[in-house]
Amino acid sequence: MKTYQTLAKLSERAHLLDGISGLLGWDQETYMPSKAAPIRAKQRELLAEFAHTIKTSTEFEKTLASLIDIESGTILMKESDPAKDASLRSWRRDFLRAKKLPTSFVQEFTRLTSEAIFVWDKAKQENSFANFEPHLEKIIDMLKQKTEYIGYKEHPYDALLDEYEPECTTKDVEKLFYPISQEIPKLLSDLIERQRRHPKKLPNIKLSADEEIEISKKVLNLIGYDWSCGRIDLSSHPFSSSYHPYDCRITTRIESHGFVTQVLTTLHEAGHSLYEMGLPVEFYGTPLGEAISLGIHESESRCWETRIGRTEAFWKFLLPIIQEMFPGKCDSLQADQFFKEMSEVTPSLIRTDSDEVTYPLHVILRFQIEKELIEGSLKTKEIPERWNALMQSLLGITPPSDREGCLQDIHWAMGGFGYFPTYTLGNIYAAQLFEVFQKRHPDWQERLQRGEFEFIKEWHLREIHTYGRRYTSHELIKKITGQEVSSQPYINYLGEKYRHIFH
Amino acid sequence: MKTYQTLAKLSERAHLLDGISGLLGWDQETYMPSKAAPIRAKQRELLAEFAHTIKTSTEFEKTLASLIDIESGTILMKESDPAKDASLRSWRRDFLRAKKLPTSFVQEFTRLTSEAIFVWDKAKQENSFANFEPHLEKIIDMLKQKTEYIGYKEHPYDALLDEYEPECTTKDVEKLFYPISQEIPKLLSDLIERQRRHPKKLPNIKLSADEEIEISKKVLNLIGYDWSCGRIDLSSHPFSSSYHPYDCRITTRIESHGFVTQVLTTLHEAGHSLYEMGLPVEFYGTPLGEAISLGIHESESRCWETRIGRTEAFWKFLLPIIQEMFPGKCDSLQADQFFKEMSEVTPSLIRTDSDEVTYPLHVILRFQIEKELIEGSLKTKEIPERWNALMQSLLGITPPSDREGCLQDIHWAMGGFGYFPTYTLGNIYAAQLFEVFQKRHPDWQERLQRGEFEFIKEWHLREIHTYGRRYTSHELIKKITGQEVSSQPYINYLGEKYRHIFH
Repeated sequence: MKTYQTLAKLSERAHLLDGISGLLGWDQETYMPSKAAPIRAKQRELLAEFAHTIKTSTEFEKTLASLIDIESGTILMKESDPAKDASLRSWRRDFLRAKKLPTSFVQEFTRLTSEAIFVWDKAKQENSFANFEPHLEKIIDMLKQKTEYIGYKEHPYDALLDEYEPECTTKDVEKLFYPISQEIPKLLSDLIERQRRHPKKLPNIKLSADEEIEISKKVLNLIGYDWSCGRIDLSSHPFSSSYHPYDCRITTRIESHGFVTQVLTTLHEAGHSLYEMGLPVEFYGTPLGEAISLGIHESESRCWETRIGRTEAFWKFLLPIIQEMFPGKCDSLQADQFFKEMSEVTPSLIRTDSDEVTYPLHVILRFQIEKELIEGSLKTKEIPERWNALMQSLLGITPPSDREGCLQDIHWAMGGFGYFPTYTLGNIYAAQLFEVFQKRHPDWQERLQRGEFEFIKEWHLREIHTYGRRYTSHELIKKITGQEVSSQPYINYLGEKYRHIFH
Repeated sequence: MKTYQTLAKLSERAHLLDGISGLLGWDQETYMPSKAAPIRAKQRELLAEFAHTIKTSTEFEKTLASLIDIESGTILMKESDPAKDASLRSWRRDFLRAKKLPTSFVQEFTRLTSEAIFVWDKAKQENSFANFEPHLEKIIDMLKQKTEYIGYKEHPYDALLDEYEPECTTKDVEKLFYPISQEIPKLLSDLIERQRRHPKKLPNIKLSADEEIEISKKVLNLIGYDWSCGRIDLSSHPFSSSYHPYDCRITTRIESHGFVTQVLTTLHEAGHSLYEMGLPVEFYGTPLGEAISLGIHESESRCWETRIGRTEAFWKFLLPIIQEMFPGKCDSLQADQFFKEMSEVTPSLIRTDSDEVTYPLHVILRFQIEKELIEGSLKTKEIPERWNALMQSLLGITPPSDREGCLQDIHWAMGGFGYFPTYTLGNIYAAQLFEVFQKRHPDWQERLQRGEFEFIKEWHLREIHTYGRRYTSHELIKKITGQEVSSQPYINYLGEKYRHIFH
């Protein structure tokens, strides 16, 4: 027991450092004076170095090795209990990943991507993929090298995916994404046809920065967001950032995209924040106090955004409140009609602007290209052509420029290959989980329309948050739903919902 | 040269950690969710541990010892230059201080004072010195132990003072404070008499939090504060906080104390911030990129607050701007009459509410008590009685309660003995420096009245900021003024200024 505590203590130190770095990242996007950027980079680099040193230290390794066989993963701890065993397996997993990457490699990759972000930003403004290409090529070369350091069983891309979605392989993702890539384009054509009978008149009500914050705070108050552990600020892109269950923060946009987007974005970020707030504080610093994966994180945020926020029941509750907040701006709107209009589906060039139905197609496109780049079947310079061809086949549109095509996202410049798939994994998990939630609470829509949210939060807390990282994402889904992970519930949900709206 | 660079690199790492901790402190007072306090304490404790480890590491010691004899202070570096020599001396000094305190002592003291702050806060609310006394007694016991660890030549209090005002002794402070304790009470009686002929009609214009920030930002814009390296936020007490010349932040109060206080407080904090912004960025992480002492820091803030802000010329410039900002609130005010009214001198119970003339008496009282406690001639339980007696003899008033007496300040609960004297040292230095400034710029009042500030900033930058910690405070004063440190210019300034206002 004492040895386990030693390990937990070391792990907590690394978590504290990661949390501090997270706060510095939040500050960077919200309040930091502009000229401080280079010194901030140095500060975060140093914290990463200290955290890495702890995680790969001989002390950590020796303590870990006395409780779990590092080679085989066999638990050696006497008086073992399943939760602690799970913790040991996660520590072993993280340790092995961390140990495999030479420090010099990590530092070089950090430098390369820091530079690449600036280059990408400029290249995007100038609409020149050619200017970004050499940097991207170097990143891909290093990522290929990384897959060799990390190792993989079947596909080199496994090694990258595994960072964001532990234990999930390229084959798993392909199996889940394939039916989506087949079904959703058909659904899309059908919906476009059906929407012709439903003319869109959605008013585009823009808000000031103050009003954006006001509406977000209102929504957060309504769902019972705990301000003693959280806050909201303005940044150029909305994000959520957490350092401990008692310090979870979200942001919203400085520029208005209209109040529907504002509400949905707030719910999305609140979903992330509620997950972190719900992690068991007594296990802070150990895997039992951590989130499972980006996919499960995204399933929490997507649940609040789409399964709660994109429902007629929710807008029947919220619209009158918004009408009262901003008199004269949207007085004549009717919730049912308004909900139908906000639900309109249109293929769009930009992932972050896309609707619930087309979003996964944007992700599948990126997953396909990442996989091909890492396995070497696609060359960096061929990206724009491949991108445009996939856009045409999946969404039926072709970007007029790379700025609206393969240059739109920051992820590749950051070296974040393997990240995109987790967005859609989140939707897939959320759909499976929501089926169970619906069975438990068949009256959820009536309650939602009355503005009840506590039972929703409580379900997530009890079923998901409280376990920390005790299970992998696929184990958790199995535990809650009794089923293997499958994209069928997600496909069914989209089809039924949107065919019902546009009947 | 390479060895010096190694030392600078190590020192920079410690500075980065200290800067991060500073930012966490800023966040704690501005935006942190309330429940995050305990985890924030853990984060900062860890950063302090890492910084301490670097500063006292064998690597640091060995590298330092190859450039300067740690025992004697003799420079060993070939191709020495005076700036680098000064740097080495500062490093040696800091190293010796850091080495002398056992880690267990530092940790225990941190725990004790963290707890004491809560106890003090409660005791102050309950107006019960008895409840705070046991904690304060422990703090004083530990401080006495600290003076033995650190060592001192003449008075144990030297060891504490030296932390905030390097190389300045108890005897130095006594010599500087004695004439003030003799002259200022006489000036005060005289002024009270004179003020009877000048009835005070100063309007007490309260501002909202938004207006407080607005007026502060206006003042900062007017003096040319660089927003690319700085910012201002709200907190319960105004403070300044810097992590690098490119990231310096100040705060202002959430609760209004009227616009005169608002303007003066802003100038005060701006003075601190401008000092940090003015430190040579190329020497960041080494003593040549650091501020000299709290006393010199305070001389910069007091200069902006009192020598610029508390002048008729400044208000002739600013008042019309404020009248334009808040129409209908103070339209009828005349700058000359207004300045006279805001300059009224009154003995007050609370240090932070006191005016320019009585402020040093509050500091002298605290210095006297701290010294007696550390030398053992005063017992903790005798503090209230001693406090009240000194208040009577220095300011002619007696606090009706300890809440308005010896419980008013947080400093002792924080263990900050030796800190208070630097406030008045700041005024003393500022007065000496301002004599030189006035000679260099005899037309400063006319220029100030026209709203010129650049020449003031430029003088401070060139004469003070640019040298970092190359000189001690007393060496710097000697270098700029040609004189030893003396409180006579400060006493003369107060007497002449206030006898002129209330002639």
